[in-house]
Amino acid sequence: MEIICVGNELLIGKTLNTNAQWLAKRATSLGIVVKRITVVGDDIDEIACAVREALGRNPRFIITTGGLGPTFDDKTLEGIAKAINRKLELNEKALEMVRKKYEEYAKAGKIGIVEMTPHRIKMAKLPEGAEPLPNPIGTAPGVLVRVGNTDLIALPGVPSEMEAIFDGYIANLLKKEAGDVIFFETSIHADNIMESALAPLIDITMHDNPYVYIKSHPRGAEKKPHIEIHLSTTAKDSKTAKDRIGKAIIQLSELIKEKGGKVKLKE
Amino acid sequence: MEIICVGNELLIGKTLNTNAQWLAKRATSLGIVVKRITVVGDDIDEIACAVREALGRNPRFIITTGGLGPTFDDKTLEGIAKAINRKLELNEKALEMVRKKYEEYAKAGKIGIVEMTPHRIKMAKLPEGAEPLPNPIGTAPGVLVRVGNTDLIALPGVPSEMEAIFDGYIANLLKKEAGDVIFFETSIHADNIMESALAPLIDITMHDNPYVYIKSHPRGAEKKPHIEIHLSTTAKDSKTAKDRIGKAIIQLSELIKEKGGKVKLKE
Repeated sequence: MEIICVGNELLIGKTLNTNAQWLAKRATSLGIVVKRITVVGDDIDEIACAVREALGRNPRFIITTGGLGPTFDDKTLEGIAKAINRKLELNEKALEMVRKKYEEYAKAGKIGIVEMTPHRIKMAKLPEGAEPLPNPIGTAPGVLVRVGNTDLIALPGVPSEMEAIFDGYIANLLKKEAGDVIFFETSIHADNIMESALAPLIDITMHDNPYVYIKSHPRGAEKKPHIEIHLSTTAKDSKTAKDRIGKAIIQLSELIKEKGGKVKLKE
Repeated sequence: MEIICVGNELLIGKTLNTNAQWLAKRATSLGIVVKRITVVGDDIDEIACAVREALGRNPRFIITTGGLGPTFDDKTLEGIAKAINRKLELNEKALEMVRKKYEEYAKAGKIGIVEMTPHRIKMAKLPEGAEPLPNPIGTAPGVLVRVGNTDLIALPGVPSEMEAIFDGYIANLLKKEAGDVIFFETSIHADNIMESALAPLIDITMHDNPYVYIKSHPRGAEKKPHIEIHLSTTAKDSKTAKDRIGKAIIQLSELIKEKGGKVKLKE
C-alpha cells in the first residue's frame, strides 16, 4: 500500500502530518504493509505525477488524503483523473450525498435555502467509473476508483472525516486483502549501553529470530543515554506472534546484560 | 527542494514525522520552496529508488533524514551510493569525527577503551566525493554530496541531531540560494459561514491579490463550524509581504461580512 497526502500546508510545515501516521498505523495493524508515503502540494500536475508513479509500482491500495473540498485549491480528483486518463464527470450518487448534507445543514438552521452552487457541485465531480463513499462527518464524499489491480481511494484531509470514511468503508477492504495476518509490536528499554555496542547484539538476535524485526531508537538527552528497542512481527495468530517476540526479547536481554547493560521491559 | 525521510517506524505509524515538518518549516522560512516529501523504509533499493526519482526532478536540494547510525538497518548512505552510482568508501575526516566522539564518551566514563568496531566505522563510510558534517549532539556525521546541480544532504533521524546539523551547516546554504526572499504567513478565522460559501470569496480575493496564496481549513466540531483561513506570500522584504497580506485580509473580511459571516484576526 502507498499513501499520498495532498496539501501545501504540509509542504510549508504549517501542519504536522498526523493523517499519514494514523493511516499507516491502522493499515499495519490490519496486516497491510505500507511501502511509501508521499506528500505533494495542491497542484494538479504534482498530484497526477505522484499518483502515476505510485500506480507504476503496482500496489494493491493507494490512499490519498486531502484536496476533496469545495475550494479552488482542492485538486486531488482532477489530479487523479489526469493520472489515470479519465474525465471528471458529475456523479449522481455523489451529488445526492452532497445535496442531503446541505439539506441537513438547512434543517439545523446553519444555512438558508439549499443552493447547489458550482463550488458545492464540484465535490460530486468524480473520475469516470469512481464510486463515492459517504462522509458521515463532513460534506465531501470519499472516492474509490479501481485502476488495474489497484484500489485507489481518496479521503478528505480533515482527520475526523478521513478516519470515519476509512473505518466505515476501507478498513474491511484492507482486512479482507490481508487475510488472517496480525501485526504485533512491543518495545524494551536499554540503559548503560551505547547504540554502537548494541548493534552487533541486535544483528545476532535477528539472525536467530528471522521473523522478528528489531530496531533501536536512541532516546533521552546526551547526559542520560537511553535506547528504545522496538520489536515487531507479522504472524497468522496472536500466540505465534507473542511467542516469537518473547523468545527474541529473552535472547537480546541476555546479550545486553553480558555487556553490562540494563534492560527494562517498561520505560 | 525535496525531503526524503527514511525509517520503517514512519511506515508502521509508530513515529509521527516531526522531522519533515521541522525541515519544511525551516526551509520555507528561509525562502526555499519544498515541492515533495517522501517516506520510505530501511531498505537499500527503496531508498535508492526514492533518491533517483528525486534527482530526476532536478531540485537544488534534497535532504534525507534517518538511517545514518551504527546498526545494520541504517542504510541511507548505501541507498544514496547506489542511486548515484558511487562506491561507499572510508572517509578519513568522518572517521576522525566518529573517533573523537567515542574518545569524549570514554573521557566522560560512558564507555571503557575506545574501540573502533565495524559498527562504529560504518558511520564513516560515505559515498565517494562526499563531505562529512560534524554532529555536535550525537555520533553519526551528516553528509553532503553534490550530484549535478543538486546538493544531496543526509541528516540523522534523531531530531536534536538533525536540527543541530541543519542549523550549523545547511541553513546558510539554503539562505544563500534563496537570496533576499522571505516567506510571510498569517491566519484569520471565520465563523457563521460554510466553507462552500467561503470558496468563491477566496477565489475573488486571490484573483485580485495575485501574490497572496489563501487556503481554508475547516476546524472545530460539527456543532460549531469554524474556518481557519491561512494567507501567505513570498516577497523581497517584510514590508511588501505584510502590505500584500493586509490588503488581501481587508478585502476578504469585507466579502465575508457581506455574506453574514464573522471574522476574527485571532482565534
